[in-house]
Amino acid sequence: MTESNTPSRSRRLLSLLALATLAPLAAFADEGQWMPQQLPQLAPRLKQLGLQLPARQLADMTRHPLNAVVSLGGCSGAFVSAEGLVITNHHCAFDAIQRNATAQRNLMAEGFLARSRAEELPAGSTERFYVTDHIDDVTAEVTGGLPATLGGAERHAQIEQRIKALIAACEHDPAYRCTVPSFHRGLSYYRVRQLMIRDVRLVYAPSERIGNFGGEVDNFEWPRHTGDFAFLRAYVGRDGRPADPSPDNVPYRPRDFLTVSTAGLRENDPILLAGYPGRTQRYRLPAEVRAARDVQLPRRVAETQADIAVIRTATAPDPESVVRYASVVRGLANGLKRSQGTLDGLTRRDIAAQKDAHDADFRRWLAAQGRSDDLATLRELDAAIADDQLLSSQEFGLGVALHSDLYRSARTLYRLALEQRKPDAEREPGFQQRDLPQIQARLARLEKTSLPAVDAARWQAALQRYAALPAPTHPAGLDALLPAPDEVRARVTGSELADRARREAWMSQPVDAFEASTDPLIRLAVAHQPLLLALETRRKAVDGTLEQLVPRYMQAYIAYRQSRGEPVYPDANGTLRVTFGRVSGYRPRDGVLKLPFTTLEGVLEKHTGQAPFDAPAALREAAAAQRGGPYRDAVLGAVPVNFLSTADTTGGNSGSAVMNRRGELVGLNFDSTYEAIAKDWAFDPAMTRAIHVDIRYVLWVMQQVDHTDAVLRELTIRGTH
Amino acid sequence: MTESNTPSRSRRLLSLLALATLAPLAAFADEGQWMPQQLPQLAPRLKQLGLQLPARQLADMTRHPLNAVVSLGGCSGAFVSAEGLVITNHHCAFDAIQRNATAQRNLMAEGFLARSRAEELPAGSTERFYVTDHIDDVTAEVTGGLPATLGGAERHAQIEQRIKALIAACEHDPAYRCTVPSFHRGLSYYRVRQLMIRDVRLVYAPSERIGNFGGEVDNFEWPRHTGDFAFLRAYVGRDGRPADPSPDNVPYRPRDFLTVSTAGLRENDPILLAGYPGRTQRYRLPAEVRAARDVQLPRRVAETQADIAVIRTATAPDPESVVRYASVVRGLANGLKRSQGTLDGLTRRDIAAQKDAHDADFRRWLAAQGRSDDLATLRELDAAIADDQLLSSQEFGLGVALHSDLYRSARTLYRLALEQRKPDAEREPGFQQRDLPQIQARLARLEKTSLPAVDAARWQAALQRYAALPAPTHPAGLDALLPAPDEVRARVTGSELADRARREAWMSQPVDAFEASTDPLIRLAVAHQPLLLALETRRKAVDGTLEQLVPRYMQAYIAYRQSRGEPVYPDANGTLRVTFGRVSGYRPRDGVLKLPFTTLEGVLEKHTGQAPFDAPAALREAAAAQRGGPYRDAVLGAVPVNFLSTADTTGGNSGSAVMNRRGELVGLNFDSTYEAIAKDWAFDPAMTRAIHVDIRYVLWVMQQVDHTDAVLRELTIRGTH
Repeated sequence: MTESNTPSRSRRLLSLLALATLAPLAAFADEGQWMPQQLPQLAPRLKQLGLQLPARQLADMTRHPLNAVVSLGGCSGAFVSAEGLVITNHHCAFDAIQRNATAQRNLMAEGFLARSRAEELPAGSTERFYVTDHIDDVTAEVTGGLPATLGGAERHAQIEQRIKALIAACEHDPAYRCTVPSFHRGLSYYRVRQLMIRDVRLVYAPSERIGNFGGEVDNFEWPRHTGDFAFLRAYVGRDGRPADPSPDNVPYRPRDFLTVSTAGLRENDPILLAGYPGRTQRYRLPAEVRAARDVQLPRRVAETQADIAVIRTATAPDPESVVRYASVVRGLANGLKRSQGTLDGLTRRDIAAQKDAHDADFRRWLAAQGRSDDLATLRELDAAIADDQLLSSQEFGLGVALHSDLYRSARTLYRLALEQRKPDAEREPGFQQRDLPQIQARLARLEKTSLPAVDAARWQAALQRYAALPAPTHPAGLDALLPAPDEVRARVTGSELADRARREAWMSQPVDAFEASTDPLIRLAVAHQPLLLALETRRKAVDGTLEQLVPRYMQAYIAYRQSRGEPVYPDANGTLRVTFGRVSGYRPRDGVLKLPFTTLEGVLEKHTGQAPFDAPAALREAAAAQRGGPYRDAVLGAVPVNFLSTADTTGGNSGSAVMNRRGELVGLNFDSTYEAIAKDWAFDPAMTRAIHVDIRYVLWVMQQVDHTDAVLRELTIRGTH
Repeated sequence: MTESNTPSRSRRLLSLLALATLAPLAAFADEGQWMPQQLPQLAPRLKQLGLQLPARQLADMTRHPLNAVVSLGGCSGAFVSAEGLVITNHHCAFDAIQRNATAQRNLMAEGFLARSRAEELPAGSTERFYVTDHIDDVTAEVTGGLPATLGGAERHAQIEQRIKALIAACEHDPAYRCTVPSFHRGLSYYRVRQLMIRDVRLVYAPSERIGNFGGEVDNFEWPRHTGDFAFLRAYVGRDGRPADPSPDNVPYRPRDFLTVSTAGLRENDPILLAGYPGRTQRYRLPAEVRAARDVQLPRRVAETQADIAVIRTATAPDPESVVRYASVVRGLANGLKRSQGTLDGLTRRDIAAQKDAHDADFRRWLAAQGRSDDLATLRELDAAIADDQLLSSQEFGLGVALHSDLYRSARTLYRLALEQRKPDAEREPGFQQRDLPQIQARLARLEKTSLPAVDAARWQAALQRYAALPAPTHPAGLDALLPAPDEVRARVTGSELADRARREAWMSQPVDAFEASTDPLIRLAVAHQPLLLALETRRKAVDGTLEQLVPRYMQAYIAYRQSRGEPVYPDANGTLRVTFGRVSGYRPRDGVLKLPFTTLEGVLEKHTGQAPFDAPAALREAAAAQRGGPYRDAVLGAVPVNFLSTADTTGGNSGSAVMNRRGELVGLNFDSTYEAIAKDWAFDPAMTRAIHVDIRYVLWVMQQVDHTDAVLRELTIRGTH
């Protein structure tokens, strides 16, 4: 957070969040994805943990080390040289690698190393680096002066309008991308300004046989042996400002970059982790947890399992379509494992019962404090949550009934045409001028991830599943408007949207062109629009009511926690956060201890020669030759590969810098253990572990396997202290 | 071994086995299934381990604690009261439990507790306790004076004849069962005399939801949470001698019994284990290991997998046939996991390469010692092993081609008729008068484990697999004599052998009745007999040659080990052995530590309410009520359930008493970890762990769950020391 422009509201909030110095710090374990400005409140805890960086320095995004942290939009990374070199995960650079692969040059299998700047490859027109440079508290501007009598939908519309205006003012300079996320479930709003670097290049990535060793089999698993790292570089115009990709561009000079340490970590050493976690649900009420556990997650699991099975069957006869859907299936399988893991976690620990106990204590406190208004809010909230769940069920049903990539394009295109009739500022978020590149990218991406025949098979099966869903999941009026399952194939294969050029051409067509079209998918989109809009309006009304009630609940809840001397971090929302913890194994179940480090020996142990356990010969030879060099850990007696920490992470934290007590880079975050998946709902200090790749393995692979001498020279590496 | 009758040959052997007191004892880790009389050689090791029992006492089968150890024929157990009470594994008592179950009373699910002696249930007419009371070295009698010029088959026949005579003389008193197993692969022979108690009764077994908690899923797995224990009682006639089951019988008074200790074990504590391990292959030559790894185990795995799949398909439509084949499938699955585990273990550690290195060193030593005769023996042995492997392949093919329970009965019955024409002493082992009860039991058991329709499906599929096997697995002449696969069903269902009474009636039919029979299976058995006999004769010749060469190899090998100061234990052969080790976890792979103890918490953790993880409500309530009492371990903070040790065990060691440093009962052996399965071929100190049930869990279940007050009172229990 910058020093400027902190209105009184924010100061009040900060005081509300303030930590009593006598608080039982140890009790918090390592839970917390903290906004940088909250860290000074945690100074005693950070000191106790053994961190040497002053909390005040850590709180300042313009100072080292946070000024070296970068967002990739969905992933995190860090600058590691003065010349814009960024380290992130291999899986975060995967699109950039895949885009540059050719029939002659399988960069996924071979890896890629630019021998000079000139050889660095364009990561693709949609790849971005986002460097946060300014954060304003805009709570007053977003929610100030809204009459309490306002209905949900109107309130939502007003807030949306104000946010759009705040964004538009900020994006006046096209070098920036701005967002106004809410914090603490709508209690406050901040405007985040990020320098958006749009010339991203691929510098070095190891073979996926290192970078994705273990693949889907090891996803969310420990022990892990994945070299999940890659290097990209940020380029800008000669004026130092972001520019479209061009050979004339020059490397971006970041404010600062991270030093790499080979000193290594030991069990129980402290670590710091900085990045952009996506979404968590830590402050959900017991009723919301129960709905997730009993309704939402089970139906999501069943739906995803069914969809994967359909794709497998539909693609089986044709190897090329298997390849085309590989990343779709991978994504679905990953989501499935995440849903199942969350479900297992919620069940194993009976989070709902824990929430019940905590919630009861909270209500007792409210009663004791005479806060009857807050108790009334909680009662209102119960009703609003029930509304939300009913609507969520219908939205789920809608998603199943309209489950087609190509038909989704038709709906997007028609909606875009409808929105484009309005002035830009009044358009629905996601359909404004600023959103067009993303829309186009999504339409283009279908070319690589969808096939009409498979898409039709998925939709047909989904319609059959929809028919079997319980009545409350069927939005009113939808069933009559749906195509019969056996008619879907003709619609999908008969649509001109299957052709990429014609699909993109529809982006600039007016509404009447859609309404006059005989294309079977466009006709359906036009026919469905009133119903879709009605659901959207209901969503806005429900959200508007929640946006009014939930912040009141959160304010009361924060006061309650403050009364116990406990600081409260906001749920993750894609903004920069800092978390900390210790290197630590865990006991997943009675009789088993998962150790905090894995080693190169383990890579050889897992190697079978068959994907995903097919380590390259060069790696195996270097390992066999015991060329551990300075990267060999004396305690482990081997080169460490991955390690576990108690840091609090979630999706979006991929590629986050893991730093030692001095703020030096010692690893990259890339995954969590299976037992940790439910942490998005509740953090369990005994079980929640994040998985990191050890920087010593990164350096060992670079030196001994891929011989990336120039990149190694560009890093600033410090040895043992 | 008793003090009497130790001929000079045995003294020579013992001196050969003698351990130089300066030997590097620690290097042996805990490998070794020692004959009791070998233990004095290991006295320093036992002392170093912390065992307080003098090695000399342990070596004496007539003294405590070995005089309390008992064989169940395939399982082990121990007397735990002066009134013949025996503790063993639940799975060793399973037949006795199942036999007493009725439609009204599911003893497997409910468990069983006799409230008085009168309520104790007959374990079944084939259940036996064997109490070893006498062992003689009979090497001279078995192999002495055989001319070196004797051919393999003749040598084998002579040895067989001598053994039969030795057994017959010993079994003159029908109270005894005698065997003459070979030790050190034929280097020596001992005659083992065992009191055979044939009135066995079921006293107490917990529900299989405790006794088989985890079932097939957890088989060979760790962490484990199985209460694998049960109590039986030995009854004898009023004269104290074994008698047929009768209400007039009285409890057997064993020479001694084991005291139970609740003091508990900690990690690294020493343990002793005594029981009847079945078969190991520790002294195989490299060529034999390679054949097992590359040929025998892979084909065994493939065959078993295929057979299980056929049973599953054939039984699927009919729930009753699923039940009928449940124990068959369980046995096959267990064998499959064992074969696969052995294969994995042989491959993981490249045992063949280790054997190569060891074998090369052995040969260098032989050359340096000028033992050219021994080197010549090794060369001869290579040829004999090649013969053996060729024949084994044909025997495997034969087994596949004739894979039918009912047809196996036909062959047994016809063979029995053929043998019964000879005087008893000349009959083939397995077909003598003494074997008739076992033959009858096997014929009767089909009633509970086989169904003609399923049997026919298995045979038909097996014949198809046989047709696809490589030529060297087809015994000469067999193919022409086999039924066509599609003709099998008619033969099996058309045979009168499917009827139990008629099947058993054939036991007393003469040869000409078989030869005149039109029964389709009996006719086949008659037609196959010459070919079967030819293969058997070849087997005897091959074995005879091996029996001549292998002992020479073993003698040289023992001398070689002796030169290194290493004692050599013989392969397991179903005789009483003692092993020792420490309580210890292990590292199955990089990044994972398996802890040495599991606890009651883990039972609750695994409990799903679905078999095999369906702990009884009484157990869960007692656990939740924290009624650990004296059985709660202070270090673990919970009641221990199972634990691991480094003791050297194998099949047959089920139910073996696990004793503490004072020889008190602290647990029962019941399984090994998956990583340990290959130990039958080579012991790996880092990975080989035996799984035991902790006596504190046994006592906790008895006291808190099943309230077996009388049985608890009958035990002699000592608390902490």
